[in-house]
Amino acid sequence: MRYCSQCGAQVALSVPDGDHLPRHVCSECHTVHYLNPKMVVGCVPEWEGKILLCRRAIEPRLGYWTLPAGFMENGETLRAGAARETFEESMARVEVGEPVSLISIAHLDQVHFMFHGRLLDHVHGPTPESSEVALFQEKDIPWEALAFRTVQHTLQHFLDDRRQGVSRFHVIDLTP
Amino acid sequence: MRYCSQCGAQVALSVPDGDHLPRHVCSECHTVHYLNPKMVVGCVPEWEGKILLCRRAIEPRLGYWTLPAGFMENGETLRAGAARETFEESMARVEVGEPVSLISIAHLDQVHFMFHGRLLDHVHGPTPESSEVALFQEKDIPWEALAFRTVQHTLQHFLDDRRQGVSRFHVIDLTP
Repeated sequence: MRYCSQCGAQVALSVPDGDHLPRHVCSECHTVHYLNPKMVVGCVPEWEGKILLCRRAIEPRLGYWTLPAGFMENGETLRAGAARETFEESMARVEVGEPVSLISIAHLDQVHFMFHGRLLDHVHGPTPESSEVALFQEKDIPWEALAFRTVQHTLQHFLDDRRQGVSRFHVIDLTP
Repeated sequence: MRYCSQCGAQVALSVPDGDHLPRHVCSECHTVHYLNPKMVVGCVPEWEGKILLCRRAIEPRLGYWTLPAGFMENGETLRAGAARETFEESMARVEVGEPVSLISIAHLDQVHFMFHGRLLDHVHGPTPESSEVALFQEKDIPWEALAFRTVQHTLQHFLDDRRQGVSRFHVIDLTP
């Protein structure tokens, strides 16, 4: 950040009164610009025991498989965001259910929140973000070709819990 | 947002290629500036069965009682943020435990995440953000003088669950 988004003047790093961290402060209008972590929301979509995965058509990790997830938008709830991202990436409509995982990735300034999702019907297919969308039985999940560690942790916990017949919520911290 | 934080030129609202919502896009360097919800993290600090509350020394809701919570910072985990905010607002050091509530407030573009916290010792006291910090038995909680609905919902769920001897996680959507 180099310029003030309110007035266009240059910003400089300084610690505002009463604060404890350097912030980007405008040299003209003195607006303090805070930078905060972004929320990623998504789900583990399930249909007749199979898990829906999306093969990424975009970077990063093009060609690898992921659970549908993306940046939460202003003005929406977590569950609405998870359903929207699932539809945008896979054309699948889900009823968003229990929370599965919440993953802090401090070094990327992100928090990922993943729910369980029940597909409302069998419809799903490729989108601008996914070259391929498919349902996998547990034994066929491409563990070696998953796009992100968040996906791996979430899937592993979800499947472990499902095997035990329970629904648990997992708070996880990922380090580099 | 009126100016580009990267180059200082004016921004205008337009829908980028492949997107579905209007974004602030720079007229010169074409940077797309996304606006996303902010995370608030905090906890329900407990000491010998009593709950620690902070009387707000700042607006909004000056003079009302709250659980310690505040905006999550870049570079920290949810639990680290909850412990930091608790210390900043109450001088209390906590071990952050189980998640209690996750509250979407879509109309404020916020997500609040509250954990259970175990005070590590009896130390607590006023801070620049809190004119008074005190431990309350359940029967003495000032329900009529709580600062926010997020605090009311979180406390109510936590105490209901505690009475039943369980620890549950609650995902809640607040509307205006």
